[in-house]
Amino acid sequence: MTPVRIACVQLAPRVGDGDGNRLRAREAIETSVAAGARLVVLTELCTSGYVFETEEEARSLALRPEELSEWRTSGAYVVGGFPELADDGALFNSAALVGPEGVIAVYRKTHLWDREQLYFEPGAEPPPVVETPLGRIGICVCYDLSFPEVPRGLALGGADLIAVPTNFPLTSAVPPGEKPIELVVAMAAAHVSRVFIALCDRSGSERGVDWVGATAIVDDRGLVVAGPVGPGEGTVVADCELERARDKSWTERNDALGDRRPELYAGEPAAVD
Amino acid sequence: MTPVRIACVQLAPRVGDGDGNRLRAREAIETSVAAGARLVVLTELCTSGYVFETEEEARSLALRPEELSEWRTSGAYVVGGFPELADDGALFNSAALVGPEGVIAVYRKTHLWDREQLYFEPGAEPPPVVETPLGRIGICVCYDLSFPEVPRGLALGGADLIAVPTNFPLTSAVPPGEKPIELVVAMAAAHVSRVFIALCDRSGSERGVDWVGATAIVDDRGLVVAGPVGPGEGTVVADCELERARDKSWTERNDALGDRRPELYAGEPAAVD
Repeated sequence: MTPVRIACVQLAPRVGDGDGNRLRAREAIETSVAAGARLVVLTELCTSGYVFETEEEARSLALRPEELSEWRTSGAYVVGGFPELADDGALFNSAALVGPEGVIAVYRKTHLWDREQLYFEPGAEPPPVVETPLGRIGICVCYDLSFPEVPRGLALGGADLIAVPTNFPLTSAVPPGEKPIELVVAMAAAHVSRVFIALCDRSGSERGVDWVGATAIVDDRGLVVAGPVGPGEGTVVADCELERARDKSWTERNDALGDRRPELYAGEPAAVD
Repeated sequence: MTPVRIACVQLAPRVGDGDGNRLRAREAIETSVAAGARLVVLTELCTSGYVFETEEEARSLALRPEELSEWRTSGAYVVGGFPELADDGALFNSAALVGPEGVIAVYRKTHLWDREQLYFEPGAEPPPVVETPLGRIGICVCYDLSFPEVPRGLALGGADLIAVPTNFPLTSAVPPGEKPIELVVAMAAAHVSRVFIALCDRSGSERGVDWVGATAIVDDRGLVVAGPVGPGEGTVVADCELERARDKSWTERNDALGDRRPELYAGEPAAVD
């Protein structure tokens, strides 16, 4: 197995500074690729910042997907978030996968957090799994990960790694010695479906909102192999044998996906009075 | 809100010693109830031990559900595991809920781990949610929890707390300072569905198998409020406001269950080539 070097760059976008954010995103990609990364994950809405005051502000920072071709490099793949302006004028909280050939996929976030609902339409398509030379990359964004159906669906769709651009607002201090619960959720999702997860959070206090700083890389057993970054900017890097995610066996008799009993999950559980 | 005192008793059953195990289970219940517990959770297969050598051995230790009425007390509810002999002679790895009125529900484990498949039939009914004066109690067993569909389904069915009798075999040492990954999985399940989870593992080396000792009580935010016990016997106790699990709101605009997009989960995710 050839390990794939993954870098998650916890940036501090500045809301409203579209040009500066795009420049910093490109610099982060270039620095990571120069250090050998083949997959670079950036934060949610990394080109715009997150805490918009009005829909107009969000709209003024929106991009067409083709503009993300500026993330193209000669040999790496990049996943990062941006506010997407669709052909019909709708706005989405989207993430793009960009490879050497340009923009390969765009995912529109399907579970919108809080005030995002004021500015963005929810995506109508499930999170995608994209075949690349590195392996199969699944994509979802931030609050999507709070729905265990999402990483499970991506694993069932064949994802070896799930890239998760995110902006986790810090709502209560992480207890000393504990991991952020958002990272705990990622560890569990990775473990039960035997997939790698590359979580890229942000930093930089923005209009009164601080961030968890949960940027981390989790392996296919649910172990944190790099990170979390914590407050402040920072990059985590790990060399991951993504092919390991193709093996779902726990024992000679058990398989993480094969042992599912979907006929028992479809309906509501039996209620006993 | 009236808190409910919950006790999870990490026992060390001895395989083959049916009478002794049943006595120790009753003692654990009595001791816990005397200390104020209203809900007592015991381990998987607590009446028999776990590492059977033959089906005959498992069968010789099997019980009829009505025999679990020996767990009855005047005011408490008990969830614990036992090998169940069904009317048609089939064996199941089951868990019973026993209240003051006797045996209320029996759940037959639906996801069988490793050599359990040699001795037990898998259950054909989904894990149940049972209405009690303490709140709504969901039940699943050990490896069931590795399927995020299970705790999610129980939460959708209205469970305030999920009781999980378990025997987690120790396959690799828990890294220092880390929580067992089985507990991480429970924390994530509790957090994303906003339910309490009472996990009752076992101790006692049995035919070369040791155990994680992950017995713990997790609150509706995914925080460990008692435990884990670790190696050896031990009891964890917590007073939990189970009604908190009825509130699934994260923000004024977000709800842990209401924000689900089941129309996007049913099929396989979109594949992009």
